[in-house]
Amino acid sequence: MSSERLLDKIETPEDLRKLDRLELVRISDELRQHIIDEVSNNPGHFGASLGVVELTVALHYVYNTPYDKIVWDVGHQAYGHKILTGRKAQFHTNRKYKGISGFPRMAESEYDAFGVGHSSTSISAALGMAVAAQTKGEKRKVVAVIGDGALQAGLAFEGLNNAGNQQADLLVILNDNNISIDASVGALKEYLLDITTSKTYNRFKDKVWRLLGRYKKVGTRARTLAAQIESGIKGTVLEQSNLFESLNFRYFGPIDGHDVLHLTRVLEDLKTIPGPKLLHCVTVKGKGFPKAEEQQTIFHAPGRFDKCTGELIKPAECPKHALYQEVFGQTLLELARQNDKIVGITPAMPTGCSLNIMMKEMPGRAFDVGICEQHAVTFSAGLAANGMLPFCNIYSSFMQRAYDQVIHDVAIQGLRVVFCMDRGGLVGADGATHHGFFDIAFMRNIPGMITAAPMDEVELRNVMYTAQLEKTKGPFSIRYPRGTGVICDWQQPFEEIPVGRARLISEGTDIAVLSLGHPGNFVVEAAKSLRAEGISVLHYDMRFANPLDEEVLHSVMKRFRKIITVEDGMIKGGFGSAVLEFAADNGYSAEVKRMGIPDYFVEHGTQQELWHECGYDAAAIEQAIIKATGH
Amino acid sequence: MSSERLLDKIETPEDLRKLDRLELVRISDELRQHIIDEVSNNPGHFGASLGVVELTVALHYVYNTPYDKIVWDVGHQAYGHKILTGRKAQFHTNRKYKGISGFPRMAESEYDAFGVGHSSTSISAALGMAVAAQTKGEKRKVVAVIGDGALQAGLAFEGLNNAGNQQADLLVILNDNNISIDASVGALKEYLLDITTSKTYNRFKDKVWRLLGRYKKVGTRARTLAAQIESGIKGTVLEQSNLFESLNFRYFGPIDGHDVLHLTRVLEDLKTIPGPKLLHCVTVKGKGFPKAEEQQTIFHAPGRFDKCTGELIKPAECPKHALYQEVFGQTLLELARQNDKIVGITPAMPTGCSLNIMMKEMPGRAFDVGICEQHAVTFSAGLAANGMLPFCNIYSSFMQRAYDQVIHDVAIQGLRVVFCMDRGGLVGADGATHHGFFDIAFMRNIPGMITAAPMDEVELRNVMYTAQLEKTKGPFSIRYPRGTGVICDWQQPFEEIPVGRARLISEGTDIAVLSLGHPGNFVVEAAKSLRAEGISVLHYDMRFANPLDEEVLHSVMKRFRKIITVEDGMIKGGFGSAVLEFAADNGYSAEVKRMGIPDYFVEHGTQQELWHECGYDAAAIEQAIIKATGH
Repeated sequence: MSSERLLDKIETPEDLRKLDRLELVRISDELRQHIIDEVSNNPGHFGASLGVVELTVALHYVYNTPYDKIVWDVGHQAYGHKILTGRKAQFHTNRKYKGISGFPRMAESEYDAFGVGHSSTSISAALGMAVAAQTKGEKRKVVAVIGDGALQAGLAFEGLNNAGNQQADLLVILNDNNISIDASVGALKEYLLDITTSKTYNRFKDKVWRLLGRYKKVGTRARTLAAQIESGIKGTVLEQSNLFESLNFRYFGPIDGHDVLHLTRVLEDLKTIPGPKLLHCVTVKGKGFPKAEEQQTIFHAPGRFDKCTGELIKPAECPKHALYQEVFGQTLLELARQNDKIVGITPAMPTGCSLNIMMKEMPGRAFDVGICEQHAVTFSAGLAANGMLPFCNIYSSFMQRAYDQVIHDVAIQGLRVVFCMDRGGLVGADGATHHGFFDIAFMRNIPGMITAAPMDEVELRNVMYTAQLEKTKGPFSIRYPRGTGVICDWQQPFEEIPVGRARLISEGTDIAVLSLGHPGNFVVEAAKSLRAEGISVLHYDMRFANPLDEEVLHSVMKRFRKIITVEDGMIKGGFGSAVLEFAADNGYSAEVKRMGIPDYFVEHGTQQELWHECGYDAAAIEQAIIKATGH
Repeated sequence: MSSERLLDKIETPEDLRKLDRLELVRISDELRQHIIDEVSNNPGHFGASLGVVELTVALHYVYNTPYDKIVWDVGHQAYGHKILTGRKAQFHTNRKYKGISGFPRMAESEYDAFGVGHSSTSISAALGMAVAAQTKGEKRKVVAVIGDGALQAGLAFEGLNNAGNQQADLLVILNDNNISIDASVGALKEYLLDITTSKTYNRFKDKVWRLLGRYKKVGTRARTLAAQIESGIKGTVLEQSNLFESLNFRYFGPIDGHDVLHLTRVLEDLKTIPGPKLLHCVTVKGKGFPKAEEQQTIFHAPGRFDKCTGELIKPAECPKHALYQEVFGQTLLELARQNDKIVGITPAMPTGCSLNIMMKEMPGRAFDVGICEQHAVTFSAGLAANGMLPFCNIYSSFMQRAYDQVIHDVAIQGLRVVFCMDRGGLVGADGATHHGFFDIAFMRNIPGMITAAPMDEVELRNVMYTAQLEKTKGPFSIRYPRGTGVICDWQQPFEEIPVGRARLISEGTDIAVLSLGHPGNFVVEAAKSLRAEGISVLHYDMRFANPLDEEVLHSVMKRFRKIITVEDGMIKGGFGSAVLEFAADNGYSAEVKRMGIPDYFVEHGTQQELWHECGYDAAAIEQAIIKATGH
């Protein structure tokens, strides 16, 4: 059957562009099936790519890629794009160690105009390319494809606002599926829903002429074109006071994003209209795979599933342990039941971070604010300034978006906000854009910021408990990794952890190992193995990168010549460097070896593969200890 | 004369609220004159506070402050607020060392509902307070006052979008003076201008009823109220497709922001209307002081001036040296003339960073993108992805806003963007929110990011020259301080600085001092003074925090037991820590003392006062050397 596929003849978009237009329907179907076949077997992002199959085909058919540039926002919608641009044969390596990336990546293909993994960058990046083209006198076209969820982020608005002020030739395609990962929230969503309802569709139909009259440069040719587009589009050009028109964009749509033939015609017409313009496409996330259309959040990144029935395939071995995120979600609910000051905040990750547990039981006290980390933090600061105690949960790498708000709105004012950073350290298959590389380094040197990284589930619970105690002052950050913990019965009664107090894991005499966070478990494994060989390891779980447990450090520095630090973050500037600073400030000269993430952007793979590559898994720690102790 | 002032009887807003409404005109005039008297003599922000005199008086008259909360965006508009809220007598200490802050500050007064210095935080913070009030069942009112310039930033949009989705009781006052510091840019500006022109004013007047009909909860009372407001407002409630209405805000205005009596009436009416609403006030920056109205950019923060004529008073001693920012501005223009790939980008600081020099000569190659640091960086990344070489100038503390974009959009992709960070280190009178505390620490550990801090004007020129050479790869950051340099004839021919190469300033034998950036000049001064006392100091200007000059460090670590590092940034995680990391990784045990900004948020004062307080001015370095060498 596969030998009959048209898709098999497509190596690059150039092949696609040789097809008859009517064949695009068949190619779209085959591409969709190819994605289903691949992703059901080799897990990855699913629903988003299914939703833009027709758009992907139409864009590469109409535009002269890679000369023309297509910028995919967020990037998890780009599987179809990858398959059509020379990576069909490699696609089975998607997100695997040394395989292709799950996101567009400039270094991977000339068709990947801009690398991406975080949301809402496409308009700004595409505008930069368009302005560069203008400056150089190129005829290059630039298209940004952005989802309605991603459009909520401030960066996207900044891009629109600036693009509307420049005359660069830019097409923004709004891929409106009314969902980000969880259901999309925010006033903008309601607005988009409003303009896609039929009542609004035709209301301003007659105003298209008046509108185009505004753009004097455009002339009659464009008027004619616009009329063609207009008659082809079921909706209409809305009047000038449309939100996008307010920002100087010409707005077209809404149109059906799954009608590939119509899409190609509209895109061809739009190519000839200069300046900033927005095409509003309505699509269905998971389109063409019934289960994925029904359960959009689950099928955003579903793991393996039966490609016929859509049934999820559980891993052969069920994980023995809970996910850290579940421990967070359950614990926050328990604490919120006891402490009525507690509120929960997530920027668009209620399922990913498990705040949905609290949202279900206490909808008035847990808020999904949409994809807007900056707002999530300043909103939390406002809540704190009026007496609430916000637990603001943001993935480590996304917290980079709110760095200024953490400093300026929370820390300078000493407000009590508890930052819970999920996905701290190496996250696995999502790769470089999603690893929580920097949070330990950037949090620990903010004055007054308590910086904790629990080693296991019980520790996470207890540090959350501690963070909300009345006596705890100022901002508090807690980071923990993606994935599962190590303790079966983690739902134990709460115990306070004194802020800045380390925890002795094992006594020893040959060497001291100071760990921060989950990698402490790797040290335990290494130490156990070494004990059999007669090497005795002192191991402290330091728990906090700030404040440091100075008492423990004094004692360790006095007792040991050799010290190893281990953390799941950048070696430069991280917890190990804090230990060096302590040693220098106190005149100790112990030899300190720091283990953690080295000085490059680590790519994707399983967490185990990446910990190994970075040299701080249990085996590497064991080797380092053997080397340091001279055994 | 001052004994006759009504203002003299006002210690707190409670006194203000006892006045007859008609007296508010007089109070406004007196308050304006008071600000003119004070700021002409003791420099600070000027135009913004003059523009909101009537608004300030009206807000404190109508609202029950401090129970009701007024959140001033950016904060440099809050002088009138400070004077009316118990700080009239201290106002002469504004921005002075140990005096009151030039911005709202929670720790300073219960009337300062939220501390601020950076732009665009007010809506999110106010929403947090309003939601907290709702959760606690308080009747507290919350008002955010935001300028049209600040509204362009993504954070403000995120706040609007989320507020429109919640039913919290929030009033946003848009203080529309069509200017930020420099003239405001962006599509939004044009839009606001459009809706404030008379043609649009009355177009939708008759639609107010239909609009309010949407809000079923509101009922007839609100309809009546709205009608009252409406008839009182010269403009009108725009129809539902207004940009703010798109985001679920009820929009009122535009109204004259200098008619204090009308303002109080409108605010009183708005108090009784629930949910998110926006009042659009049109004001004049610098209102009531002719020179300030004419020259709004100059009078944003004019320094001392004659309070009658508005003539600027030059400091008795003219600075001998150029400002670092001018060196940047001139040098970029020179380089851009030679290298046609170079483009310049600033987020709303063309005057502050001197990009205006290039904008004037090459308007097509230098872009002011408005208050949006995130977009400025991703836009730069897009320019670089299409072959340009952007110099993106952002103040150090504002670069915190674009931290994720620096990592995700530039560094991960290895794009060549040159980040020029003005105002690195302690900036002086603007205080904690504006100090460039963190940039050395957060830039130096981004893989591949060249992190430079030139010691003087010639070095700044040469490092900029180096950054744009074809052979230089990847992202490049250059930071320099606020204020003047040290070299008279700085316009010397360009010389390449090999990346990562330190510069020997003086040979010596007793101790080694490694400095980064401008504080190297303090070391020179200290070393000169010590030479007279027979202490011989080796001094390297290290130039780069990343990559380090390892050759120099090896040689220094081998020769010296005592090393001092000096930088104008956080000691934790900064350049000095990079030196410690080198020592640890290479097995050196020299004693390293690190000098720089200690672990707290330093407040305002002159730069000299603050360098002294932080202990790294010339005198402190001298003392440290004496102590370390045991002389």
